[in-house]
Amino acid sequence: MPKWRAGTLNSSRMDRSAEFKRWKAQCLSKADLSRKGSVDEDVIELVQLLNAREQFFTTSSCAGRILLLDGDINGLGVQKQNCCWLLVTHIPCIKDDVMVALKKANGDAVFKFEPFVLHVQCRQLQDAQMLHSVAIDSGFRNSGITVGKRGKIMLAVRSTHGLEVPLSHKGKLMVTEEYIEFLLNIANQKMEENKKRIERFYNCLQLALERETTNSHTKIKEKNNPFCTPKKKRNPEKLRGKCIPEENDKEPEIDDDNDPGINVAIFPKDY
Amino acid sequence: MPKWRAGTLNSSRMDRSAEFKRWKAQCLSKADLSRKGSVDEDVIELVQLLNAREQFFTTSSCAGRILLLDGDINGLGVQKQNCCWLLVTHIPCIKDDVMVALKKANGDAVFKFEPFVLHVQCRQLQDAQMLHSVAIDSGFRNSGITVGKRGKIMLAVRSTHGLEVPLSHKGKLMVTEEYIEFLLNIANQKMEENKKRIERFYNCLQLALERETTNSHTKIKEKNNPFCTPKKKRNPEKLRGKCIPEENDKEPEIDDDNDPGINVAIFPKDY
Repeated sequence: MPKWRAGTLNSSRMDRSAEFKRWKAQCLSKADLSRKGSVDEDVIELVQLLNAREQFFTTSSCAGRILLLDGDINGLGVQKQNCCWLLVTHIPCIKDDVMVALKKANGDAVFKFEPFVLHVQCRQLQDAQMLHSVAIDSGFRNSGITVGKRGKIMLAVRSTHGLEVPLSHKGKLMVTEEYIEFLLNIANQKMEENKKRIERFYNCLQLALERETTNSHTKIKEKNNPFCTPKKKRNPEKLRGKCIPEENDKEPEIDDDNDPGINVAIFPKDY
Repeated sequence: MPKWRAGTLNSSRMDRSAEFKRWKAQCLSKADLSRKGSVDEDVIELVQLLNAREQFFTTSSCAGRILLLDGDINGLGVQKQNCCWLLVTHIPCIKDDVMVALKKANGDAVFKFEPFVLHVQCRQLQDAQMLHSVAIDSGFRNSGITVGKRGKIMLAVRSTHGLEVPLSHKGKLMVTEEYIEFLLNIANQKMEENKKRIERFYNCLQLALERETTNSHTKIKEKNNPFCTPKKKRNPEKLRGKCIPEENDKEPEIDDDNDPGINVAIFPKDY
């Protein structure tokens, strides 16, 4: 490559790197404006691991939570924003907490389990690709990259592992206490599984970052790490890059492994 | 730029373009292996619009559906894959259909509304960015790009607008018929809203593609098109690129506009 061209590329890369550094410093120096004012305990280590690397910084996170919201339903079945929080907890929940909170509902109360979510700004596309791959392998199948018009690259780590259950209508409870207990049992189990996925994500990420740092030529196979093994053996057809047709009516799927939101065939590794 | 360099770039771009063409031809010539064997009616036009463009092809789609699944719950609250479909419909549903289907349940039946999902392979990153921007503006806030190791670029269009409601335990129905009716009413409204979003997506996409084709220098403002107006005026702080802190405990949010899965601050337009 001619010298002037190499020079231009290098200086543009340096500009980009300096700009990213500025963004990062600016973001991390800001006060945490969330109501809680701090990062959730279950994701502190993960957030620290990412922010300690020069190619990443986190812009928002939630470890996963059980929510009870009281809202109005408009004509389109979409809940309006002027709803209020009856209950929010990041730890397993008991029936009495929900029953007490439900007494305050006078609209359409909805019970939700929202799994882990994390937004990470990345210096380069390849950093986002690496993180995306780790997220998918850890079970966060709805993760995706956003590339902004001005070049900001963001990875959103998302799961499909939620619950959304309407409980009351115009203040009237539509289910029994027994059902609430049954539902909480499922939500608490999902919270437990969610926590395991966060741990898996942390372990996979650590391994991937170590690989990058040591820049080892010996490829450490993921299967050697019990905490970072893709959950399912993939379809060999798909591994050969076979195209997946329009899927209007697929085979049964409940677990994230088969979630229609992101298909096995489009995992970064299969490319 | 020196000639040899321009030549290399051009030939690499041509290789990439030819490779994409091959992938597209291969994918679209394959039989539709889904159970239904065809694209859902509500997304046919959208799928055709995309596939008619040389820079895109769709690899899977579902217009949105109501599902009733009967599955086992393992110790982790994760449903195993050996569940069966009791009911699946892409059109609004009545209570009797669900009650009849529920009679066949002998495990843990779960009612789901799964909104529109679409996977589109894109020739270049900028094609995926454009499509991503259109998806976000149409209300599909959980959309994201995947960039594979071998360079395949995929956009997944996803909504947050679902329902997941456990209904029975070991074959025993845990809710009343009245609740099923209430739930179906909400699910059917969500289906209606989902359809509107698909239409909005189609209209926004058409506008964006026209803009590309005419390569007009006059910027047509989106607000001139009533079918392609972002749903909410964004926070001016965010528009100035202000960083969003770790969000552990945010303000009330139910509508997609405030979904924690993807934050206003990371929309492509705000970059």
